[in-house]
Amino acid sequence: MTTPQPPYYAVIFTSQRSTVDEAYEQTAQRMLELAALQDGFLHVDSVREQGLGITVSYWRDLESIHNWKQQAEHMSAQQSGKEKWYTAYQVRICKVEREYGFEAQD
Amino acid sequence: MTTPQPPYYAVIFTSQRSTVDEAYEQTAQRMLELAALQDGFLHVDSVREQGLGITVSYWRDLESIHNWKQQAEHMSAQQSGKEKWYTAYQVRICKVEREYGFEAQD
Repeated sequence: MTTPQPPYYAVIFTSQRSTVDEAYEQTAQRMLELAALQDGFLHVDSVREQGLGITVSYWRDLESIHNWKQQAEHMSAQQSGKEKWYTAYQVRICKVEREYGFEAQD
Repeated sequence: MTTPQPPYYAVIFTSQRSTVDEAYEQTAQRMLELAALQDGFLHVDSVREQGLGITVSYWRDLESIHNWKQQAEHMSAQQSGKEKWYTAYQVRICKVEREYGFEAQD
């Protein structure tokens, strides 16, 4: 288990990437690391395939999400994202109300 | 825009795939098509990379999600998923409270 009992919050970030450069890869990796240092961070999953990416980060509360959005280095990355890396993206702030899972037995 | 003004619901399905066979690909594709036919379905995004997959489906309300979970062909696919295709998965039911996006101008 990577997240606590609900309720907690999720940010679903869906993006369509345009150009790929080394700076993008470095920044994307750095943002995952930086997010993990924020107060209230719980977990992140990130996958990209043929330009379409889904990153879901999980947070304790809305305040943590707000603080992460305003974090200085993250704000700079958001700006670069709009100017260079993404043709479109969507951010959805969600309250996780219920969860269940499955894990195979060895 | 692929989804209406919040509030609406999201199901975040995160999965770790084990074996890959043709039946998996067919079933996965079929489930995306079948979900889209359900009453209350809004949109789906699905991405997989190196075994880790994130599928986020969006729904009008909790009842639509419940009905989709109970749909007969989907229940059979869920069973196959546990028996054959996934080593682990997590399902999170979320209320989308807020969203915003960006689209590059041509």
